[in-house]
Amino acid sequence: MKMAELSARSGVAVATIKFYQRENLLPAGVRTGPNQALYGDAHLGRIRLIRGLTEVGGLSVAAARRVLEAIDSELPLPETFEIAQHSVSEAVDPTTVTADALAHVDTLMAGWHVSDDNPGRLAAAQVFDTFTGIGQIDAAGWFRRYAAAALVAAEADIDELDARIERAAKAEIVVVGTVLGDTLFSGLRRAAQEHLSSLRYSAPPASEL
Amino acid sequence: MKMAELSARSGVAVATIKFYQRENLLPAGVRTGPNQALYGDAHLGRIRLIRGLTEVGGLSVAAARRVLEAIDSELPLPETFEIAQHSVSEAVDPTTVTADALAHVDTLMAGWHVSDDNPGRLAAAQVFDTFTGIGQIDAAGWFRRYAAAALVAAEADIDELDARIERAAKAEIVVVGTVLGDTLFSGLRRAAQEHLSSLRYSAPPASEL
Repeated sequence: MKMAELSARSGVAVATIKFYQRENLLPAGVRTGPNQALYGDAHLGRIRLIRGLTEVGGLSVAAARRVLEAIDSELPLPETFEIAQHSVSEAVDPTTVTADALAHVDTLMAGWHVSDDNPGRLAAAQVFDTFTGIGQIDAAGWFRRYAAAALVAAEADIDELDARIERAAKAEIVVVGTVLGDTLFSGLRRAAQEHLSSLRYSAPPASEL
Repeated sequence: MKMAELSARSGVAVATIKFYQRENLLPAGVRTGPNQALYGDAHLGRIRLIRGLTEVGGLSVAAARRVLEAIDSELPLPETFEIAQHSVSEAVDPTTVTADALAHVDTLMAGWHVSDDNPGRLAAAQVFDTFTGIGQIDAAGWFRRYAAAALVAAEADIDELDARIERAAKAEIVVVGTVLGDTLFSGLRRAAQEHLSSLRYSAPPASEL
């Protein structure tokens, strides 16, 4: 297809598609003339992936480029996971979290194989420090139940991975699942919060009286 | 305590504390002279809360001000939840999600009391559209398991709320749990991903051979 059709089918402006090409997010088309090139379904899929990562997942262009390169590479899956994880995580300075918080988080993850510099381990410890700092000290059950929920989601992530055969499809689901899993979970949690808080704290609507 | 001690105990620079006061995030101290005021433990706790919301939770100053005002208000808890939810959620234009995606998300949440404009409902639908757009069409199980995980976390949120007696403490945990719950969950999920992917995809380290 030509650029105009690629733009129409993806719903993304031509100028934006050209920006993606300049930023090395999207490969060039097959050149058919001095000002014309042809694009295939792979380009369309890649544009939708870029939109998902940047617009829905909130990645910067630089972070999107890193994870797209990881998809296109031949890196083993654990390394692909690591790149995806670091691209969607704020870097946490390890010196800013207390030993107490790390010990508590490590207790939550007892039996898990997790490296000391996993960005999630440090982020969870920061949350623990914040709770302690503001005097919310009886939240051990909350942390434990979140660890259980995280394991449910991570198992779902890995099972999706297992269900794909080719490396490229596996790598894509690693990246998309890692980036968009945060968005999906936080969205569903907000919906579940509304559901449960309306059950417990609201008067029933008149129609149910 | 004086400003210098407040700064030392919170680990936050005097200039930053004064910025919080100018931005109406932190109440003034009790004035004891033309250039001096005294602060109490409530100020210290509030500074730690502001740090947690902005540094760990990633809220903007404007969003932090909105949720702090909700804590200090006398609003009912469901409204406090709503303010916290909107403050930590990207606004999603409802016209950008497909009816298919909303129908799928509503199926996931069958039986939940969720309003049509819940920000999480729209965000989850965006993720569904992204998956469909890139051709990842067999992910129904992944979505269902995330909904189960979200319900576990939201129940933990609401139980923490129930465990507090006073409205101010309840409102604080609503805000902190909503904001930092995202950070905690995504951190623990990354750790669980590393654990599970290393179990399934890595060769065992030499020490275990």
